[in-house]
Amino acid sequence: MPKYLLDIAYDGSNYSGWQWQDNAPSVQAQMLRAFAAIDCPGVKVEGASRTDAGVHAIGQCAHVLLDRPWVESSLLLALNANLPDDIAVQRVRAAPEGFHARFHSRGKRYVYRCVVSRVRPAIGRQYFHWVRRSVDVAAMRRAAACLVGQHDFAAFTTNPGYPRKRGTVRTLQRVHVIRTARGFDFTVQGSGFLYNMVRVLAGSLLEVGNGNRPEGWIAEVLASRDRRQAGATLPPNGLFLLQVLYAPDLSPAGVDPGLLVADDADAE
Amino acid sequence: MPKYLLDIAYDGSNYSGWQWQDNAPSVQAQMLRAFAAIDCPGVKVEGASRTDAGVHAIGQCAHVLLDRPWVESSLLLALNANLPDDIAVQRVRAAPEGFHARFHSRGKRYVYRCVVSRVRPAIGRQYFHWVRRSVDVAAMRRAAACLVGQHDFAAFTTNPGYPRKRGTVRTLQRVHVIRTARGFDFTVQGSGFLYNMVRVLAGSLLEVGNGNRPEGWIAEVLASRDRRQAGATLPPNGLFLLQVLYAPDLSPAGVDPGLLVADDADAE
Repeated sequence: MPKYLLDIAYDGSNYSGWQWQDNAPSVQAQMLRAFAAIDCPGVKVEGASRTDAGVHAIGQCAHVLLDRPWVESSLLLALNANLPDDIAVQRVRAAPEGFHARFHSRGKRYVYRCVVSRVRPAIGRQYFHWVRRSVDVAAMRRAAACLVGQHDFAAFTTNPGYPRKRGTVRTLQRVHVIRTARGFDFTVQGSGFLYNMVRVLAGSLLEVGNGNRPEGWIAEVLASRDRRQAGATLPPNGLFLLQVLYAPDLSPAGVDPGLLVADDADAE
Repeated sequence: MPKYLLDIAYDGSNYSGWQWQDNAPSVQAQMLRAFAAIDCPGVKVEGASRTDAGVHAIGQCAHVLLDRPWVESSLLLALNANLPDDIAVQRVRAAPEGFHARFHSRGKRYVYRCVVSRVRPAIGRQYFHWVRRSVDVAAMRRAAACLVGQHDFAAFTTNPGYPRKRGTVRTLQRVHVIRTARGFDFTVQGSGFLYNMVRVLAGSLLEVGNGNRPEGWIAEVLASRDRRQAGATLPPNGLFLLQVLYAPDLSPAGVDPGLLVADDADAE
């Protein structure tokens, strides 16, 4: 049976998240509905990341096993014709047998977007977190440098016990704080993320940017492994899943085996 | 009684337009509600432009007469605390006696935004018109040049009889077609606009950009004064009222008297 990897973009504003739920609208439910509409009922659509309610995706990935082969571009058009305006498949790739969108991910990239403005903005408010006071982006950048590498990120999750099977040690390959035309972006790439990790990291860095905390404070919070030391969990609307990383040929062989279970744990 | 000029930004997605209506949500109704909430009930909020359903504003202007003076920054904060997320006052200025936001406007600037993408975009779809095929921006720019100046724009309105008291001659000071990172912006500045004029102009220019029509076609349509010759009325979500122009001191003396009634007619 042919397997496909879908790159999916969505505006998370009107969804309780990626994951199918009994009594709440989800992106996964819309995907299942679209497959049913193109005469592929009962398929499973396995997402790489369980994005939370209100979180957006530019490059969510999901695999699906179909009972007959499709031309990739036809599958894309057929699905998009049956998806709502705020969800759209961006790319379809044939995936090898045994491929799993979540287990074979090598990592993910997220961006948390803030707009700095004395006056409350009204347009696009579902796509950024509004910051009233001007921030010191350079201080945030210096403070964030300590996050790169393998660390116990227990201080930066709202649920260190989720999932139970893994601890709270994760590896971040890249952490950037970039000034934008209207504020700043906090972008992060890691092999796996704890629950709400990007949003707590962004909230903590904002404490430094606001001048409430010194630059060295982030390293102290990290070392504390204590959630109560960190900053606020910023709201979901500023968060975008940018990309899910795979080996170029989508082969499981390209994956660091140590990451397989870690990504199962991803719940940002 | 003190008069104030408000600059107002809003996401028009959830409103039937600026203008108060009996059975539909409007931006003006939200403004009246906010004034009532800050203990200024029964005021009139006169907008410079009656933006249509789904049209956004970055710089709508409206004047209001209050029964007591306010510190401008306090009025701004009080109103914004009582407005929904998708409407926010951006600036408050004291206005001279006799000032009228609509009658004393010297002109307005609009932008119509298109995103060009082979694949349907999912994020921010309420803020642009999606164009599937690549477009020739330079051809659109050359085609648009003939629109600058005073012309009879009857071909580019969906209701040449509205309003009845004025004809269909208007003056455009600036017309630009600008390539953006994701597509193109059509920006236009004029002393007054006919009903749906910017959206019909954008739809007509797109015919040239798509290669469906030659560059000289826009001038032919303009000369025809026949709506049936022009392109489609593009949907409202790509349209933003950017700015309402006044004399620097907001004095009516700064206004070309010929514009006073023309702007009364503005219904874009």
